[in-house]
Amino acid sequence: MHSFPELYEIFEKRFDQRHFPQQPGSLYDPAHYFLGIGGKRIRPVMCLMGNELFDEINPDTWHVATAIELFHNFTLIHDDIMDKAPLRRGMETVHTKYGEATALLAGDVMMVVAYDYLNKIHSSQMHKIISHFNNAAKEVCEGQQLDMDFEHRKDVSMKEYLNMISLKTSVLLAASLKMGAILGGAGEGNQNLLYEFGKNLGIAFQIQDDYLDAFGDPNKFGKQVGGDIKSNKKTFLLIHALETATPEQAGEIRRLMETNAPEKVPGILDIFKKCKVDSWALELKDKYLNLALQNLEEIAVLVARKRPLWDLAQFLVQREY
Amino acid sequence: MHSFPELYEIFEKRFDQRHFPQQPGSLYDPAHYFLGIGGKRIRPVMCLMGNELFDEINPDTWHVATAIELFHNFTLIHDDIMDKAPLRRGMETVHTKYGEATALLAGDVMMVVAYDYLNKIHSSQMHKIISHFNNAAKEVCEGQQLDMDFEHRKDVSMKEYLNMISLKTSVLLAASLKMGAILGGAGEGNQNLLYEFGKNLGIAFQIQDDYLDAFGDPNKFGKQVGGDIKSNKKTFLLIHALETATPEQAGEIRRLMETNAPEKVPGILDIFKKCKVDSWALELKDKYLNLALQNLEEIAVLVARKRPLWDLAQFLVQREY
Repeated sequence: MHSFPELYEIFEKRFDQRHFPQQPGSLYDPAHYFLGIGGKRIRPVMCLMGNELFDEINPDTWHVATAIELFHNFTLIHDDIMDKAPLRRGMETVHTKYGEATALLAGDVMMVVAYDYLNKIHSSQMHKIISHFNNAAKEVCEGQQLDMDFEHRKDVSMKEYLNMISLKTSVLLAASLKMGAILGGAGEGNQNLLYEFGKNLGIAFQIQDDYLDAFGDPNKFGKQVGGDIKSNKKTFLLIHALETATPEQAGEIRRLMETNAPEKVPGILDIFKKCKVDSWALELKDKYLNLALQNLEEIAVLVARKRPLWDLAQFLVQREY
Repeated sequence: MHSFPELYEIFEKRFDQRHFPQQPGSLYDPAHYFLGIGGKRIRPVMCLMGNELFDEINPDTWHVATAIELFHNFTLIHDDIMDKAPLRRGMETVHTKYGEATALLAGDVMMVVAYDYLNKIHSSQMHKIISHFNNAAKEVCEGQQLDMDFEHRKDVSMKEYLNMISLKTSVLLAASLKMGAILGGAGEGNQNLLYEFGKNLGIAFQIQDDYLDAFGDPNKFGKQVGGDIKSNKKTFLLIHALETATPEQAGEIRRLMETNAPEKVPGILDIFKKCKVDSWALELKDKYLNLALQNLEEIAVLVARKRPLWDLAQFLVQREY
C-alpha cells in the first residue's frame, strides 16, 4: 500500500513519456506539450488508490489511470479553448501557442489515445470499465455545458449549481476510484460506497476551491484572490449570498457584477462577510467531507487500508492553495 | 446479400433515432440536430458490406457501423469549426446555429457515444475492433492537421498530398470495410485486401471530387463549380498543374491565386486545360479504381458476393454530383 504522494511519484514517472507518434509533429507535439506542463494527477492516483484499497495493483489499473489522465487533459485543452484562457499553470494554453484549430484536433486525438490505453486491459473487464469511463466522460461534457449555460443566467439555484459541479468535477473523481476498485476485485457494494465517497469529496473539494478564491491567503493561494468574483463566475459563495442576502445587498451584488470598477472585489467580499458566507462555506464543506468519510467508513475492508484515502480527503479539503 | 442502396435504406432506418439523452438539451440537441441533416452514410454501409462479403450480417456489425457514422459526424462538426464553414448540406453547421463552444462539446460527446456503441460488441472482438477504429481515428486527425498545414505552404508535393488524402479520407473507408470483414469472419489476407480496396477506392473517390469541382456539370454538381479554385484549396488538379506547367503558366496560377478577381476561376481552369489536367485526372482516377478492383478480385470469396462492392466502386468514381 502507498500514500497519495508515493503513488503520485510512481505514476508521474510512468506517465512522463511521449504518448503519441512523432509524426506529424504539428498535431502531436502540441498534445505532448500540454501533458508536459504538469498537473496534480489526482484522478489517476485516485484510480490506483481505489485499486489498492482492496488489493495489490492490477497491471491493468496503470492503463486505466493513464487513460483517465489523458481524458482529463483532453477536457482541459478544450475547456481552455471555450474559456479563451491564455494560460494554464502559468504556461501558454495549447490554443494560444498553436492556434485554436490545432488545439481542437490535439484534444481530439488525445481522447482517442485515452481509448488506446483502455484497449490494453483484459477483455473480461473491458465492457464494465469502458461503460463507467464513458458515463463519466459524458457527464463531464454535460457539466461543462451547464457551466456555460449558467454564465448567461441570473437565477441559478443552489440545487442546479450542485448538480453542475457534481457532473463537471465530482463524477470523474468518483469514477476513477470506482474503476480502480473494480480492477482491485471489490464487490459491488464497496464499489458504490467508494463512488459516493469520491462524489462527496469532489463537492467538498470544489467548495474549498471557491472558498480559497475569495478568502484564501494571497501569499499561499497560487492564483489571484477574487478572480471568480471579477469574472462573475457562479460559485457556491455567490449563489448562497444571493439566496440569503437582503434585497438591498443582493441589488448591490448585482450592480457590482455589472461593473469592472476597483471596488467590485472588495465590495462583493464585504457583502459575503456580512452574510457570513465564509463560515457557511466552511460548514458546508465539512458536511460533504463528513459524508465522504462516512462512505469510506462503511466500506468493508480493514481500517488500516483506508488510511491513504482518509489522508487524501483531509488534504484535498484543507489545502490552502 | 444486399446492394449499397438497400443497405443504405436499412441502416438509415435504424440510425434515425435519438442517440443521446434528452437532458441537458443544450448539449445533446445540437448533436442530434447534426445527425438529422443527413448524409450519404457511405462508411457505415461499407462496414456492413465488408461483413456481407463473407457472411450474413453479424449483429455486432450494426453497432460498429453506428459508431463509425457517429465518429464521422463528430469529425465533421469539428472540421466545420476549424474551416469556419457556415453551411453543410445546405443546413446551418452546429457552431453557426449553437455557437463554437457548444459545437466543440457536442462533437466531443458524440465521440464518447461512438465508443458506447463499440462497447456493445462481443468482448472477444473488442480489442481488435477498437484497435482498428482508433488507428483510423488517429489517422483522420493526422490528415486534417496536414490539410491545415498545407494551407500555409506553397510547395506541397503530389506524394505529400496523396498521403494527406489517404489519411483524411481513405483510411476510414478502408477501416470500415475491414472491421466489417473481421466481424464477418474473414481471414487476415482477405481483410487486408479489402482494406487496400478501400484505400485505393478512397483516393479514386477524392480525385473524382477534385475533378468535379473544376470540370463538373454545374447542372448536376450540387456545389458551386470552381469552389476549390476560389479558396486556393490544394487539390490533385492544382498540384499536378503546378508540377507540370511551364514556368510562365505556374507563375500565372500563383498570381491568380493571390487575387479574388473574376478571372481567377476561368483563368486557372484555362491553364488546367492547357496542361491537360482534366484527362490526366481521369486517368489517375482510373488507375486507382483499377487497383481497387484488382484488390477486390483477389479476395478469396465467390465472385457473386463481390458484386455489390464492385457496383459501389463504379458508382462512387463515376458519379457526376
